[in-house]
Amino acid sequence: MGYSRAVPGMIQSIERSSAVLRLLAAGPDRLRVKEIADALGLPKSTAHGILRTLEHVGFVEQDPRTTRYRLGRGLLDLGGAGMDVNELRSRALDWADALAARSVEAVRIGVLDPSGVRVIHHVFRPDDTTQAMDVGLVIPAHATSMGKVLLAYDVLAADAVGRGGLDAYTRKTVTTPRELARDLAEIRAQGWGCAVEEWEPGRAGIAAPMRIYGGLVVGAIGVYGPVERICDSRLRPRTALVEQVCATARAVSRDLTGPRS
Amino acid sequence: MGYSRAVPGMIQSIERSSAVLRLLAAGPDRLRVKEIADALGLPKSTAHGILRTLEHVGFVEQDPRTTRYRLGRGLLDLGGAGMDVNELRSRALDWADALAARSVEAVRIGVLDPSGVRVIHHVFRPDDTTQAMDVGLVIPAHATSMGKVLLAYDVLAADAVGRGGLDAYTRKTVTTPRELARDLAEIRAQGWGCAVEEWEPGRAGIAAPMRIYGGLVVGAIGVYGPVERICDSRLRPRTALVEQVCATARAVSRDLTGPRS
Repeated sequence: MGYSRAVPGMIQSIERSSAVLRLLAAGPDRLRVKEIADALGLPKSTAHGILRTLEHVGFVEQDPRTTRYRLGRGLLDLGGAGMDVNELRSRALDWADALAARSVEAVRIGVLDPSGVRVIHHVFRPDDTTQAMDVGLVIPAHATSMGKVLLAYDVLAADAVGRGGLDAYTRKTVTTPRELARDLAEIRAQGWGCAVEEWEPGRAGIAAPMRIYGGLVVGAIGVYGPVERICDSRLRPRTALVEQVCATARAVSRDLTGPRS
Repeated sequence: MGYSRAVPGMIQSIERSSAVLRLLAAGPDRLRVKEIADALGLPKSTAHGILRTLEHVGFVEQDPRTTRYRLGRGLLDLGGAGMDVNELRSRALDWADALAARSVEAVRIGVLDPSGVRVIHHVFRPDDTTQAMDVGLVIPAHATSMGKVLLAYDVLAADAVGRGGLDAYTRKTVTTPRELARDLAEIRAQGWGCAVEEWEPGRAGIAAPMRIYGGLVVGAIGVYGPVERICDSRLRPRTALVEQVCATARAVSRDLTGPRS
């Protein structure tokens, strides 16, 4: 065997994966696992683990016919979104239904949009009440649970929202960048967020982030409804609902990061 | 804290580093360590370790004034060489001198070139004999120790050399792709290579690869001289010389992968 040394303080698998990407970029021809392993002095199984992960994140692609690897579109189009909205919705559908059934609340899925949070999926509360379909609606980011969750993990969007001025929808809406920053820090610390009567009087929401590989947040999922259903008598989100929302977000994340079907 | 899960079978630090690259690619603004850590739900120290490694391999750059990170030129110019030849030479100079002094042999450093191995540095044997300067010379890859070492870790070059036909320089030159492939496999297995009278009668060489991060081979270093000095009475490379060459190659590699001065 050759040798491949770790540099003190450096993460070896990142060094190795960047070396794999350079090898693939250096030549016009596609390479086999064995060739990559030989070039870097790695056991074939190690090279295979790196290639599988790089394929998973879209940085390399394997030709199914020849089994050779090449650079992936995800690397060439690095600035693109981490995940297609249609795929996000189709993967989250069943989880959203299950959350609605279990919580007996309306469930929504949202993604960040330049002008707020775009609702990309909505499951009605499973009872006989008349409800309006929110899909396609763009709701304010700083005044909703989904929006605050998405801002908590997107510093650029949070800055932009703060700079744009924070409209007051109710007397409970957070309207100063400082208050908003405190809310977002709390959301990051606890892993979920809520907004109680900050957008519409009498209504509250609880949401949690959906993540893909590496922890990238690609959307939020949560429940939304009358404040007396979402919160306890002290206007705090009900613990059972928080747990259901968080468990669902984790389940979707697991699904999103699993193998594509 | 948020959570960041590993996907079974995937290498978490590679997933995280690709997420960092996507974050940096997504916006025009540069990001701080803390902002990246927050977005991915990672401890700041973890994000910092990832960023330091990505900076080390040239995939991200830190603005020394603002301490913010952006995508690095190494990523945007992925197809470029892993290392500049001038930097390689300047970093290997002292090690080449030390090897010449210790082995009392001529030392050369070479890099792969479309037409063979280009000698980029040459230290004369430290005795009073008249010697010709080889710097700038391109020598045949398949018939020299440096060439075979470089081919061993570059499958595309090895294929191209094999397809181009293997000229015989002496009656010991390897002239069939099959023999060459066997030699290269042996070099990979032992981590060094030799060529005994395969290019010039009466002369032999021993060489080892110089590697950067991830195991990428960027050049070869070795001794070259009269076969009776380089080899023992059975025409096998002297063990002491092999060890000196390998130790030097490792030292240069360590230096190459260390912090830039």
